[in-house]
Amino acid sequence: MTESDLPVAQLTPGRWGDPAHPAELPAAALDALKHLGIQRPPDPVVESEVRSGLTDEQLQFLSSVVGSQHVAAEWEARWAHTRGYSTTDLLRFRAGDTSDVPDAVVYPASHDEVQTILRGAAEHDLAVVPYAGGTSVVGGLAPTRSFVTLDLRRLDQLTDLDEISRTATLQAGVRAPAAEALLAERGYTLGHFPQSYEGASIGGYAAARSSGQSSAGYGRFDQMVVGLTIATPRGTIELGRAPMSAAGPDLRQLFLGSEGAFGIITSVVVRIRPRPTERHFEGWKFDTFEAGLTAVRRLAQDGPLPTVLRLPDEVETAVNLADPDVLGSSAGGVLAIIGFDGPYNQATADVLTAAGGTNLGEGPGETWRVGRYRAPYLRDPLLDEGALVETLETAAFWSRIPALKAAVTDALVGALSATPPLVLCHISHVYETGASLYFTVVCAQTDDPITQWRNAKSAATQAIATAAGTISHHHGIGTDHRDAYVTEIGPLATEALQAVKQTLDPNNIMNPGILLPES
Amino acid sequence: MTESDLPVAQLTPGRWGDPAHPAELPAAALDALKHLGIQRPPDPVVESEVRSGLTDEQLQFLSSVVGSQHVAAEWEARWAHTRGYSTTDLLRFRAGDTSDVPDAVVYPASHDEVQTILRGAAEHDLAVVPYAGGTSVVGGLAPTRSFVTLDLRRLDQLTDLDEISRTATLQAGVRAPAAEALLAERGYTLGHFPQSYEGASIGGYAAARSSGQSSAGYGRFDQMVVGLTIATPRGTIELGRAPMSAAGPDLRQLFLGSEGAFGIITSVVVRIRPRPTERHFEGWKFDTFEAGLTAVRRLAQDGPLPTVLRLPDEVETAVNLADPDVLGSSAGGVLAIIGFDGPYNQATADVLTAAGGTNLGEGPGETWRVGRYRAPYLRDPLLDEGALVETLETAAFWSRIPALKAAVTDALVGALSATPPLVLCHISHVYETGASLYFTVVCAQTDDPITQWRNAKSAATQAIATAAGTISHHHGIGTDHRDAYVTEIGPLATEALQAVKQTLDPNNIMNPGILLPES
Repeated sequence: MTESDLPVAQLTPGRWGDPAHPAELPAAALDALKHLGIQRPPDPVVESEVRSGLTDEQLQFLSSVVGSQHVAAEWEARWAHTRGYSTTDLLRFRAGDTSDVPDAVVYPASHDEVQTILRGAAEHDLAVVPYAGGTSVVGGLAPTRSFVTLDLRRLDQLTDLDEISRTATLQAGVRAPAAEALLAERGYTLGHFPQSYEGASIGGYAAARSSGQSSAGYGRFDQMVVGLTIATPRGTIELGRAPMSAAGPDLRQLFLGSEGAFGIITSVVVRIRPRPTERHFEGWKFDTFEAGLTAVRRLAQDGPLPTVLRLPDEVETAVNLADPDVLGSSAGGVLAIIGFDGPYNQATADVLTAAGGTNLGEGPGETWRVGRYRAPYLRDPLLDEGALVETLETAAFWSRIPALKAAVTDALVGALSATPPLVLCHISHVYETGASLYFTVVCAQTDDPITQWRNAKSAATQAIATAAGTISHHHGIGTDHRDAYVTEIGPLATEALQAVKQTLDPNNIMNPGILLPES
Repeated sequence: MTESDLPVAQLTPGRWGDPAHPAELPAAALDALKHLGIQRPPDPVVESEVRSGLTDEQLQFLSSVVGSQHVAAEWEARWAHTRGYSTTDLLRFRAGDTSDVPDAVVYPASHDEVQTILRGAAEHDLAVVPYAGGTSVVGGLAPTRSFVTLDLRRLDQLTDLDEISRTATLQAGVRAPAAEALLAERGYTLGHFPQSYEGASIGGYAAARSSGQSSAGYGRFDQMVVGLTIATPRGTIELGRAPMSAAGPDLRQLFLGSEGAFGIITSVVVRIRPRPTERHFEGWKFDTFEAGLTAVRRLAQDGPLPTVLRLPDEVETAVNLADPDVLGSSAGGVLAIIGFDGPYNQATADVLTAAGGTNLGEGPGETWRVGRYRAPYLRDPLLDEGALVETLETAAFWSRIPALKAAVTDALVGALSATPPLVLCHISHVYETGASLYFTVVCAQTDDPITQWRNAKSAATQAIATAAGTISHHHGIGTDHRDAYVTEIGPLATEALQAVKQTLDPNNIMNPGILLPES
């Protein structure tokens, strides 16, 4: 089974992934939770329905654009479009928190319908949140005032495939598995497989500057995009007449990562590649994370890079709650995963061997491949059992990676000292000049886990800033990272972005409070 | 001799390159000019000196920042900083045109001095043009009102080299050969070799989104930059805490290509690579440009790419004024050039052979390598003899390349029908999804060659827009492409950029009229 065979997951509010395939914790994991002193918390609170604040006149406007059958103001649809999937979001669902519920969900079918809604929204006093996959983990769906959500699922077409140029034009609402299936019919792949794959969308990839598990081979999503169509409250912008250009700043890179704050990306032209006819995944053991770090840096700088390259640290290697079987085979070291889309490249293996790696064969590689989208499913039963589980990520230049990793780990351990945490870390995205670091934190919940995590996250954020990392490698800004973002780029660059927003969205209807502080 | 051995050229106003090595036209070329009906024009007009418009108060301000010995208001220095090297610029020198002469040339020594000048410029009614290499070919040094030029040559340091991360921090005024020499001492190379190499600077590379002859192997300059320090009239912006990030838009890409309109890039952090210990250059013959096009597209899409990849069309292959010897060996087809920094890659050669190419060996490759920076030198004696010679470039997706090439050629031939031109074309930069097209035009000058070229360029610009190319692949916007740029990105994106400028440069002192129309 490859990615193009996976169905699109219809996510459940407050629980990750396809409800037809819930995760169960293995017995070993339950034992481990007991050792961490974790106890089941009270049952979740059932939410109380909140009325939509939409006026008849507002409903009338929205219906006039998309048809009344494509405007949903009933509770179920609105609740299903509330928040994303950060642990804080999940905890707020469990607490029955009904703030941030949209006043309606609107389903436009075309760029023109999106454009018409955005042009008229200010006059009708509507703020707008774009929604496709809904998989944000940084508070990306939580504006500060009443709003309607534009669900882009009806923009679900592959509208062009240029086999000479190897580009595909995909509408923003195409979900990731659907995109792969559409491309697979023609023999192509996008090659973008983030952990949110089952729920993610093309528009979300672009708006959030996504990075996938195969980034070593296929690049980041922002490197795949060659064209964008954007609906803004003041009109349409079309960008990308060539792969690269010296015609001024690369404005595509101004909208990639703009998280809906300037407008709604309705269509994306992406570079595609032929589908591989073979794939290989292997486990490689290194004695220490440090030894593995040197090895993956060597591949990133001198090649040849595989398609997938993942290096967990000692703690993450040992604590694999999803698959305790793997643990034994790599005890005492770290278990890297290497994957090739296409023929096996012996030269890559030779670099790893020369750097002290031991090939453990395809077993651990296949175990990782099969379970690659399952890890987030485990968070729900862990939260059910009273564990606090969350992830955060950063990136930096290679020379800063060891100190950054230590600083973030120390900050998390220090902030959570009352409930001693496990802090797991891995590298999963590499560049010639640096890499990402992805942290997973597991500890016992306190009575107020939202505040508990807020304090830990705040300490980690401070550590990232001090140790010269970026606040996010691929999760984005949303509301959670907004203050840290302003600190990272500085007040003047923030003002420049606010000026762009003011130009394109003068009434601040687009995702208010997301990405940028309201000026 | 490699790039790091080349001296920094001190360019002469109105004539390209190192005056110690002027070009002479071979006899065959002089014969060819006669066939085109080309006759020597009148001798150039000697310019009349124009007084600096600077007040004592303005001079005082500038001197107070950099020291009076670093402010030059005398004619020679000002004339030496006038315009760039487009053919129109050269023709205006020959016409004795003294418009666009700066009122003074200022030589700051540090970021802080640049920052202080920019902060104070508005109060002292000074517009500012940044200058380092001065090699613009798109009217990039010609603002619309009186101004001082900030020559960054004293910002000439390699301030950091991080061998773990493989990054180097270079000040903006470091000239390209000096940068290679500084890096070579440590065993590294930047790998960026545009045709302007002898005169270009690090800051200019960044501000103009440069692309070099080795782009297939090393990438474009904008892909090498991981960090930027920018002085703006409102303060300093520092960008780039990681190779890549999902922390909002990639703001580095907003300043790369901004051509000094938002501020002055004072320092750049670039990715570096180990110096190659061997290099190989070869000529490959294809029967037609079309056959060569398929071959280079195959390398761009499926690899393995060489470091240098150039494909001239039939006309450019036949008309090699610099080296008539090469002509014979490739008569009747096209002569592609392939280069490797590092070991020869037989797999690349195999792709070319399979695509119908014939290996002509290292002779033509070495001829190209040795003469790679000499072509622009020929323009001066050609202009002396009465030829009109100019280049223009574009880029597009692969499927549009043949129609775009035909459309631009037709437009140039049509607009210059009174002086039938030769139109040469080559591809020198390739991407998975498309490529650049670089045109050279040669014909007889009319009595008014500036207007003659303006009309031809206008026709080519219209053809590029209609055939879905970008107005510039690597020359940039300057003033020459400003209107076409607005057409290309649209009025709303233009307004967004003007809002950025208004935020960072509220008094419009930075390179006024460059890149963006004055709002």
